[in-house]
Amino acid sequence: MDNTFSHITLERRPMGEPQDTDFKIKTSPMPTPQTGDVLIQVHYMSLDPYMRGRMDDAKSYSAPVALGATMEGGGVGQVIASQDPNFAVGDFVFGMLGWATHACVKGKELRKLDPTLAPITTALGVLGMPGFTGWYGLTELGRPKTGETLVVAAATGPVGSMVGQLAKARGLRVIGVAGSSEKCDLAVSTFGFDACLNHNDYQDEKSLRTALAGLCPNGVDIYFENVAGKIMLAVLPLMNVGGRIPVCGMISWYNAGALGANASGDKDNLPKLWRTILVNRLSVNGFIISDHWEKYPNFLKEVAPHLASGAIAYQEDITQGLENAPQAFRNLLKGGNFGKQIVKVIP
Amino acid sequence: MDNTFSHITLERRPMGEPQDTDFKIKTSPMPTPQTGDVLIQVHYMSLDPYMRGRMDDAKSYSAPVALGATMEGGGVGQVIASQDPNFAVGDFVFGMLGWATHACVKGKELRKLDPTLAPITTALGVLGMPGFTGWYGLTELGRPKTGETLVVAAATGPVGSMVGQLAKARGLRVIGVAGSSEKCDLAVSTFGFDACLNHNDYQDEKSLRTALAGLCPNGVDIYFENVAGKIMLAVLPLMNVGGRIPVCGMISWYNAGALGANASGDKDNLPKLWRTILVNRLSVNGFIISDHWEKYPNFLKEVAPHLASGAIAYQEDITQGLENAPQAFRNLLKGGNFGKQIVKVIP
Repeated sequence: MDNTFSHITLERRPMGEPQDTDFKIKTSPMPTPQTGDVLIQVHYMSLDPYMRGRMDDAKSYSAPVALGATMEGGGVGQVIASQDPNFAVGDFVFGMLGWATHACVKGKELRKLDPTLAPITTALGVLGMPGFTGWYGLTELGRPKTGETLVVAAATGPVGSMVGQLAKARGLRVIGVAGSSEKCDLAVSTFGFDACLNHNDYQDEKSLRTALAGLCPNGVDIYFENVAGKIMLAVLPLMNVGGRIPVCGMISWYNAGALGANASGDKDNLPKLWRTILVNRLSVNGFIISDHWEKYPNFLKEVAPHLASGAIAYQEDITQGLENAPQAFRNLLKGGNFGKQIVKVIP
Repeated sequence: MDNTFSHITLERRPMGEPQDTDFKIKTSPMPTPQTGDVLIQVHYMSLDPYMRGRMDDAKSYSAPVALGATMEGGGVGQVIASQDPNFAVGDFVFGMLGWATHACVKGKELRKLDPTLAPITTALGVLGMPGFTGWYGLTELGRPKTGETLVVAAATGPVGSMVGQLAKARGLRVIGVAGSSEKCDLAVSTFGFDACLNHNDYQDEKSLRTALAGLCPNGVDIYFENVAGKIMLAVLPLMNVGGRIPVCGMISWYNAGALGANASGDKDNLPKLWRTILVNRLSVNGFIISDHWEKYPNFLKEVAPHLASGAIAYQEDITQGLENAPQAFRNLLKGGNFGKQIVKVIP
């Protein structure tokens, strides 16, 4: 076993878009597992939009990553040493392994994976936190009913594609929004969306709204919010009475600095939003998926068989090499990824 | 019986604040009740903020009042002729009687009142639509828990005073906001609020927020939204994780023209709001009380005895004369009323 490992630390809090110089790749001595610890070689690590929030020093639902500390994040890998009787060398596991080639964590914080049931990368996306986010938000807060219409953006991402496929299976009309015609094709052909609009084809929220309205002749009952910005402003006036808006993210505003200082949203939008919530009796619910892990087994029980049967599809975008994580993350925030963004850490 | 009656019609859609010239007081022939009809002499009519929305030609939860038509609104009065066997001359009733001295309506749209149980004016306020709005929004959407903190504006109005008193009875800390020191005194001394702030003492939302934060050392769990504007912007950042915001109105924006075109709310506020909903997992629910009349008997059953015992107090502001309704309504939108605004129509 090599006696060092590589990891990426946060060196500066990004102003707007994260820069390579905000991070540093370091080599450190390999940790020695103590009682209860498990040492893991990371095979794949996850990149998720929420990580942008952890880079800021603002009050959020979780503490920011300290300057100089290893960037946090989920990963999958293989046990190479164990001081926890529940884990043996060779076991595949999921855990918060960080942006690193190796991680030493408590065994009780790991979840064992069976690589014969599904590729281990799926624990980062379709069967992991993002897929669970889509399932929970749609099921618990979206309360979908047959015949209704749902709109979701980032349609080919791991959250949006889960939301869309589950909603289709429940008999809803599902309209996606994505950032390229290639993604829109994927949403329709692979994920079964009824239609998908490329938001880059529309100059502003008004033209996007007109196009959406044409695809949603009966209005919108559920807007699954993970993007905000132009898309949210386009969809809101189309909401039906009794509509639901589960809010799990607002990626388009994450790089906007001091809580959206440079974000779109002119001075009229807040009163308009508030009025729409009132007049259309909307139910807007923010949620953070880490509050709801107790329902994760229900999710797995429902969705894993559909993955195995092929009824639920997924798309992954795998970047090679830990050192490329900052660039891949920047690309993710711009929507440059094609499906769930993963970094392959082992060669 | 006089063979004419007086009524106030909407002649123009107000631009911003309603003007006297937007209305006309007319004299028309007294209607003759047909089968199923009841003719009522109006004793008191209600003035409520929602009426401002009915004057606009914008899409809302209810059709606008047509130009030239009598202004709509609730009223209480006495039957003077009846073609419905369920109503006898002399009965006291509540119904949508309009801004008028008399009204001829279907008996099935009336509710009989027992003037020995409570003054008939209470059917317009504390025991009527506004009180029910407060009860429903707090109970069903606010989900109050002992030890939590609630903030409500228009604290001495019929909605705010109901919300505050019910929340106090459930063991919450209750902070009011109102538009004068006299109202704040009333909120504390008569309605039992823990404290009440005069928003006119604070130049902007930031100074109001600082004062509110001092009164809410454990943050805010429920913000009952009926006013919006500066108060909403002050309260939002104080919301606790898991907070609830029932939204029944936004009176501070009603006169703002095209959906808040002149309203406060700079370009940062929408992203900030959205982020707060997400990060603090807020539940924001718009509601229109007319969707929920099936629960009105539950409300009456719970609240009427407390009114009789004096455990729930109420405050009415009675203007004399139908002809003064437009002026009283304008005053109401500015918060110039002191308690539930009513117009005494009979001399």
